[in-house]
Amino acid sequence: MSDLRVAVLGVGIMGADHVARLTSTISGAHVAVVNDYLTDKAEQIAAGLPGCRVVADPLDAIADPDVDAVVLATPGPAHEKQLLACLEHGKPVLCEKPLTTDVETSLEVVKREAELGKRLIQVGFMRRFDHEYAALKAMLDSGELGRPLVLHCAHRNPAVPPSFDSAMIVRDSLVHEVDVTRFLFNEEIIAIQIITPSANPGAPDGVADPQIAIMRTASGKHVDVELFVTTGVAYEVRTEVVAEKGSAMIGLDVGLIRKTAPGTWGGQITPGFRERFGQAYDTEFQRWVDAVRHGSSTGNYVDGPSAWDGYAAAAVCEAGVQSLNSGKPVEVTMVARETIAGA
Amino acid sequence: MSDLRVAVLGVGIMGADHVARLTSTISGAHVAVVNDYLTDKAEQIAAGLPGCRVVADPLDAIADPDVDAVVLATPGPAHEKQLLACLEHGKPVLCEKPLTTDVETSLEVVKREAELGKRLIQVGFMRRFDHEYAALKAMLDSGELGRPLVLHCAHRNPAVPPSFDSAMIVRDSLVHEVDVTRFLFNEEIIAIQIITPSANPGAPDGVADPQIAIMRTASGKHVDVELFVTTGVAYEVRTEVVAEKGSAMIGLDVGLIRKTAPGTWGGQITPGFRERFGQAYDTEFQRWVDAVRHGSSTGNYVDGPSAWDGYAAAAVCEAGVQSLNSGKPVEVTMVARETIAGA
Amino acid sequence: MSDLRVAVLGVGIMGADHVARLTSTISGAHVAVVNDYLTDKAEQIAAGLPGCRVVADPLDAIADPDVDAVVLATPGPAHEKQLLACLEHGKPVLCEKPLTTDVETSLEVVKREAELGKRLIQVGFMRRFDHEYAALKAMLDSGELGRPLVLHCAHRNPAVPPSFDSAMIVRDSLVHEVDVTRFLFNEEIIAIQIITPSANPGAPDGVADPQIAIMRTASGKHVDVELFVTTGVAYEVRTEVVAEKGSAMIGLDVGLIRKTAPGTWGGQITPGFRERFGQAYDTEFQRWVDAVRHGSSTGNYVDGPSAWDGYAAAAVCEAGVQSLNSGKPVEVTMVARETIAGA
Amino acid sequence: MSDLRVAVLGVGIMGADHVARLTSTISGAHVAVVNDYLTDKAEQIAAGLPGCRVVADPLDAIADPDVDAVVLATPGPAHEKQLLACLEHGKPVLCEKPLTTDVETSLEVVKREAELGKRLIQVGFMRRFDHEYAALKAMLDSGELGRPLVLHCAHRNPAVPPSFDSAMIVRDSLVHEVDVTRFLFNEEIIAIQIITPSANPGAPDGVADPQIAIMRTASGKHVDVELFVTTGVAYEVRTEVVAEKGSAMIGLDVGLIRKTAPGTWGGQITPGFRERFGQAYDTEFQRWVDAVRHGSSTGNYVDGPSAWDGYAAAAVCEAGVQSLNSGKPVEVTMVARETIAGA
Repeated sequence: MSDLRVAVLGVGIMGADHVARLTSTISGAHVAVVNDYLTDKAEQIAAGLPGCRVVADPLDAIADPDVDAVVLATPGPAHEKQLLACLEHGKPVLCEKPLTTDVETSLEVVKREAELGKRLIQVGFMRRFDHEYAALKAMLDSGELGRPLVLHCAHRNPAVPPSFDSAMIVRDSLVHEVDVTRFLFNEEIIAIQIITPSANPGAPDGVADPQIAIMRTASGKHVDVELFVTTGVAYEVRTEVVAEKGSAMIGLDVGLIRKTAPGTWGGQITPGFRERFGQAYDTEFQRWVDAVRHGSSTGNYVDGPSAWDGYAAAAVCEAGVQSLNSGKPVEVTMVARETIAGA
Repeated sequence: MSDLRVAVLGVGIMGADHVARLTSTISGAHVAVVNDYLTDKAEQIAAGLPGCRVVADPLDAIADPDVDAVVLATPGPAHEKQLLACLEHGKPVLCEKPLTTDVETSLEVVKREAELGKRLIQVGFMRRFDHEYAALKAMLDSGELGRPLVLHCAHRNPAVPPSFDSAMIVRDSLVHEVDVTRFLFNEEIIAIQIITPSANPGAPDGVADPQIAIMRTASGKHVDVELFVTTGVAYEVRTEVVAEKGSAMIGLDVGLIRKTAPGTWGGQITPGFRERFGQAYDTEFQRWVDAVRHGSSTGNYVDGPSAWDGYAAAAVCEAGVQSLNSGKPVEVTMVARETIAGA
Repeated sequence: MSDLRVAVLGVGIMGADHVARLTSTISGAHVAVVNDYLTDKAEQIAAGLPGCRVVADPLDAIADPDVDAVVLATPGPAHEKQLLACLEHGKPVLCEKPLTTDVETSLEVVKREAELGKRLIQVGFMRRFDHEYAALKAMLDSGELGRPLVLHCAHRNPAVPPSFDSAMIVRDSLVHEVDVTRFLFNEEIIAIQIITPSANPGAPDGVADPQIAIMRTASGKHVDVELFVTTGVAYEVRTEVVAEKGSAMIGLDVGLIRKTAPGTWGGQITPGFRERFGQAYDTEFQRWVDAVRHGSSTGNYVDGPSAWDGYAAAAVCEAGVQSLNSGKPVEVTMVARETIAGA
Repeated sequence: MSDLRVAVLGVGIMGADHVARLTSTISGAHVAVVNDYLTDKAEQIAAGLPGCRVVADPLDAIADPDVDAVVLATPGPAHEKQLLACLEHGKPVLCEKPLTTDVETSLEVVKREAELGKRLIQVGFMRRFDHEYAALKAMLDSGELGRPLVLHCAHRNPAVPPSFDSAMIVRDSLVHEVDVTRFLFNEEIIAIQIITPSANPGAPDGVADPQIAIMRTASGKHVDVELFVTTGVAYEVRTEVVAEKGSAMIGLDVGLIRKTAPGTWGGQITPGFRERFGQAYDTEFQRWVDAVRHGSSTGNYVDGPSAWDGYAAAAVCEAGVQSLNSGKPVEVTMVARETIAGA
């Protein structure tokens, strides 16, 4: 199967990240087209990617027959028109949140896709793909915790851009917890209340920060969310489900913590080397592939342990086996590295 | 730059994992050739990969002009001959540990590569690429902990195959801590002692498990390693450096824990959303690309939040902003999903 | 100074605990009088305590000239009358919560004590004395966290008696968090809302459990409390302060966890042996004193490590010092214990 | 039963701590006699304790008919003679470690006590009374972990007095782990080796710090201890038992952590309020008793929440119950505190 030819619309911070991701990390796709209202930015990015063109008009990029799929990282107000174009041309699209900037146009997009009879639009609520959220969801779906009752969330940013206002805390921060709630509980939210405690002295003038959101789902589950975007500390996203048979937390920087009968708390130990070191193997291979691809120009096809490292390990293990057999300390015998030119 | 054409020699558990990794995860490379002494196994794997051939003799695979690089996942005793062939044909090779099965042949391989004057051999000590080990190494290199003095390691497996013997605990388990020691301390190990406490009742007859390895480095640093391969619990790999100005531990399932003056312990909070959710974005994109590539046969180009999810989030946030402005609870207004056929 | 002669009124579960505490743990006081409306219970407890009498009427006990101070562990409805009697006779009183069962009588008690011009009444909000709450309070008072903004609490019981009703969750559970809020923030609570999510299937019929309390303090700080008294798991009391310069949590079974700039989380390591082992010393001494006091009847004046244990330690350390000097393993030389009759 | 009259011999840092402990914390005993070779120090301490005398000669103090029991906090070289005197006069004695300063005299003391036919000597290995060690011991004795195999210990001090030498690390620090090993495993240590890595740059000249002790018990269990007394960080005492069915650790500042099948790690949640708040109740009562005993001079018989605190809690809970019934936010009604003079 040939690689997917993707058009990335909008190459600001987020879009540029996605270009890099599709180029260096994702298998089976490459960036064929980039577009941005800042043409220079688009040109600059395309210049670094062999086989990537700039298309000046986002609608042209969507219509382009040599584009198989679209990533939307344009500003929210542009989404409606671009999403409808994707639907019109039958192009699958991964759309950064928000879908659109208001409820009516969002509903319109939903209806138009439904009329087409095939699903083309995915929205970028990436938390559903985070391994901790996935583990929490799996735990809930397994029934281990029984019926969920309450969800506590905290969403803390160290700082926000100067233009941030009170409503953006709802639209840009809370929106993630809205999706998390719907994802974890498989039901809609039917009521919401925003509480504004007296503000953090460090928040910009006039911005109500922190805020507390209180939500209620269709079946009566309670959700509370602390939103605090000027903590000065770090990026903390924490989620705790309290359920009929126990509770579970993620986001404490220590993996999923469960508290279940009979009175213990704790997490999971990695069951095997694949789970523990899967990331290490992936990184090792990617860095090796990259080194080999550039090897003809550098003369070095290695980015990691060398043959010498393999030799040294063999020498120590050899001595170890001798000690195992004799029960006595053993000196390690190795040639001096400098006696081998080039090693 | 065109994709690297890789030959994977040996497609047992490890080699098959690497084939999958190169195919679905790694960018810039694909598996062009597979080989195994079990020909059926190789045929079966090649059949699932478009453009992948079986080559019956591993040395032919190495010599093949349409192979750019080699992954060695064959049994250890085959490594020497295959590595020398890679050197002869100038093929970069990623060799699963051990380099070779004894010290003399390992040294021979080192010398031959040194004579070539370019580095072609990388050994698969993957822990150097693990994010916790990398963080620990970075911390040591930064000088924050001062001079390292002692290294405590534990290497625990829940179980091992029936054929495991006492020396394999040294050669196959301890070998990783040998490399970790050399990696973290940048110096050679000069002496080793293996202590065998009374054995775990659950260990196979005659196998000395657990074992304690005591090592000393050139500059006099002490390393101890608990090796215990029949714990029945889980896979635990723990490493603690004790240094002049504090200590740091990894492998407690809670990230890197540092203990430094003035008397606090703790870890790092994720500084931003890229660090916290980078993996989520990667997974999101890979799954979306995969869904889109198969969309023409399934009619579904989405594997994640749908347009409806975007609409629902918009509706809740809209109500949230109303509550923010009014200070009162607000009901969420949404159309019923079943009124839109296909949504 | 002679011991305080205390009257304990009410010797149910709580009162009986307090009798034991005053007898075996607290220095400088003993139980001189017990009283309970179940006279048998009181008689039984008094019989086990040399010098302790039963007084049938609680008001007589309060008035008794041989009673220096009173502990009130009677049911709440009895408190008003008994507290007023304590004030009348000038007797210091430690009163289990609630002060009285309604606001008007509580205020009356406050006024009567104020008229006396000396403080005689202490209320049993024991959390203020818990080392974690004390550490959290000290941290807030130190200014390290800046201005507190939000308080998140959880109060979970594994189960409650069958007679528990929805209002008791407020009066008997929430009351502790009410006091904790006032203690930590040094200000009054000015508004409260109780939210009742759909109930835990395991809660008794008609009992709204869990409940969420939302409170606001005079200066606008937000407090939320999850109250959940039928979790089936364990007793969990958790408190997190979110403040201008960071946050801190207690009750995660891991001591006080602080999250402060620049992006780290963690706790305090015990600074010295007194802090680490103070409890051990106290327990050691109390058990030794108890053993010695009963030694004449048992012939054993020891409840801990014996002379033999001291000898064995000396033998090992002696060998250790030899090894330190020689750099070689040393066998430990000890006589066989059975060669010394009675050792 | 009347209070035990205790003679404390040696009132340096440790002895003075024990005097305070017996006076303010321990129930059923008081300090009747103090002694120190620095007579001024003894006089000063006795002056602050009603009913406490100085006795100039420690042997006179032991022989004193008005002394029921002895605490030995004198220097180690004085122990032998003083312990033998305690045995001669039949006085129970709690002796700070070491029992005596060499193996021969320790054995002599053991024999003399054995001849008496009653146990009078307890040695101050206080770790056996620490709640974490007690929990670890209980876990081992329960059989939950199966047969113990390996013990890893770390003993770290931030700093030591200038006079500290290499042998004191064995005699004064390791001695605790020697006793812990014997306590946890119920068997003797039969061999020991001290390893001296290259020294911490911050250690005093000529002091071998850190040291690694390797010990073997009678049944073949392995014990290793890192001893490091100039860490500059904090006081850390850590112990991990690795056993047939899992492992358990204490001393990580997070309580006992167990790792047992099927692959989870974690701790225990406090089962109930007595376990969670027992210390708080004890502290509450002790501070209340102390306040009441001094109340006649201060006019204040309270050291904790006041009647006003009880009233405020009642007012908030009253409003809470109204909100529970109405489902609406409720303002809290309270009188202003300043309207009640003296409240």
